[in-house]
Amino acid sequence: MNRIDFKHSVKVRVRTYDVDSQGIVHNINYLKYMEIGRVEYRRNLGYKILPSGIFDDGLKVVVVHNSVDYISFSYLDDILIVFTKICWIKNSSFCFEQLITVEDGSRTVCTGKGILVNLNNNNEPESLNAKFTKEIENFENQIIKI
Amino acid sequence: MNRIDFKHSVKVRVRTYDVDSQGIVHNINYLKYMEIGRVEYRRNLGYKILPSGIFDDGLKVVVVHNSVDYISFSYLDDILIVFTKICWIKNSSFCFEQLITVEDGSRTVCTGKGILVNLNNNNEPESLNAKFTKEIENFENQIIKI
Amino acid sequence: MNRIDFKHSVKVRVRTYDVDSQGIVHNINYLKYMEIGRVEYRRNLGYKILPSGIFDDGLKVVVVHNSVDYISFSYLDDILIVFTKICWIKNSSFCFEQLITVEDGSRTVCTGKGILVNLNNNNEPESLNAKFTKEIENFENQIIKI
Amino acid sequence: MNRIDFKHSVKVRVRTYDVDSQGIVHNINYLKYMEIGRVEYRRNLGYKILPSGIFDDGLKVVVVHNSVDYISFSYLDDILIVFTKICWIKNSSFCFEQLITVEDGSRTVCTGKGILVNLNNNNEPESLNAKFTKEIENFENQIIKI
Repeated sequence: MNRIDFKHSVKVRVRTYDVDSQGIVHNINYLKYMEIGRVEYRRNLGYKILPSGIFDDGLKVVVVHNSVDYISFSYLDDILIVFTKICWIKNSSFCFEQLITVEDGSRTVCTGKGILVNLNNNNEPESLNAKFTKEIENFENQIIKI
Repeated sequence: MNRIDFKHSVKVRVRTYDVDSQGIVHNINYLKYMEIGRVEYRRNLGYKILPSGIFDDGLKVVVVHNSVDYISFSYLDDILIVFTKICWIKNSSFCFEQLITVEDGSRTVCTGKGILVNLNNNNEPESLNAKFTKEIENFENQIIKI
Repeated sequence: MNRIDFKHSVKVRVRTYDVDSQGIVHNINYLKYMEIGRVEYRRNLGYKILPSGIFDDGLKVVVVHNSVDYISFSYLDDILIVFTKICWIKNSSFCFEQLITVEDGSRTVCTGKGILVNLNNNNEPESLNAKFTKEIENFENQIIKI
Repeated sequence: MNRIDFKHSVKVRVRTYDVDSQGIVHNINYLKYMEIGRVEYRRNLGYKILPSGIFDDGLKVVVVHNSVDYISFSYLDDILIVFTKICWIKNSSFCFEQLITVEDGSRTVCTGKGILVNLNNNNEPESLNAKFTKEIENFENQIIKI
């Protein structure tokens, strides 16, 4: 996974409450940074997350999988760059792929993946619409519907 | 503030994600422990917090004030005791007083206070009912309505 | 993954600050519950985590991988059971496998995996000692060194 | 407390993991925003927080008091402005005063206060140096040593 493969990024600053007694960012907190990346990715496409936690595109997506591979440490007050892309879209689910580096890009801190599923009002998987797929493919500039 | 002034307590364990790079519990996290104390205090009186965040006694209370005085440090894996009481009740508000010590009670870690207000459906202050006052006074074994 | 495959479990209560505006535990927070399970698993074997974040068995382990599969929602005030085992040990790394269910075990909330690596003082992978492997195999009652 | 009384401010965005099941920012999390304000206030004066959690001005300060008065709710994805000033300096302690408003300043969300004490290597209070006082007074453009 390489930063040049990503069209979207956002910076986050490591805060005092993110770092543990080993002086490094606690492994859990990278999921917070990845969450920021995912919300900003969708904002960049013109959508806004509503107070209810659902985006204003009408999709009700929930996270069904998260994974993180930790590669190097990061420290208090570091500025990290969270790179985010959607790497595939299936019928009712899609996958965020993410890379976190230090600010100058010289070092990868971790990589991660999040799979989200679109649900209907009965919390059953529901097909993502063609508009969603098209917008993501336009932004990513490649075919990712599989 | 002394532990013998409290009729309710609950134990909490300091976790890895609660401790900062100075090796001590981050000051913010004591509010989490106090929140646990407040919920357990009310559970002990027979009430349960519902998924919506409101207790099943019908009261819709929100926090309008929190304060913490930090007295000594606590460390990863410490077991802390959170002592909780309601020290006064006014027309539509009441006040939690709290004390956190290390497990053997030999050292006070911090003290705190939280004022909560009962709201109606328009988010305006609403009188607490007599049942609430009576139950708290019975439990605390003193008059606290002011 | 089935709860009868686990010899260790610990209960955690879902707190107000763990739940998001969708009324469900925020996906990130399950890693906190899994962290509790991992620390308690090792405590159950007779080890204690020190203020520095390292256990008193002399091993300096760091997390290199975490993954969570989210299966059903959990809600404020739920009591969850975190089941934890070590499913394999390699030369310098080992893997926690975890299952979180609701209290009565009727419903799986999520499953997860964490891979940890033992480091020397230069932060390079270092072999786990035979004592570690033996203790885990004794507890799990099966051969897991691979 | 009025925003025009503050010379320093920083924006923070409310994130999914900051909001509780009532759909509002959980009361604890405003202390996180205030912490961001305090660190950025000192960065603005030319200091940097080190990985150890101590600033590079050589002062070892710890929080001895925090208080928050909650005035109105804030919601997921809101941009908040955290206004920060130092309102007094005593021999070994000083006080942050803070105000959080919604982005357009039309509504105060909460106000808060944090008292910090400078410690020596034995964790005893130690006098703040004249340089510290002078820099703060220069920035705040008023006498605040009391």
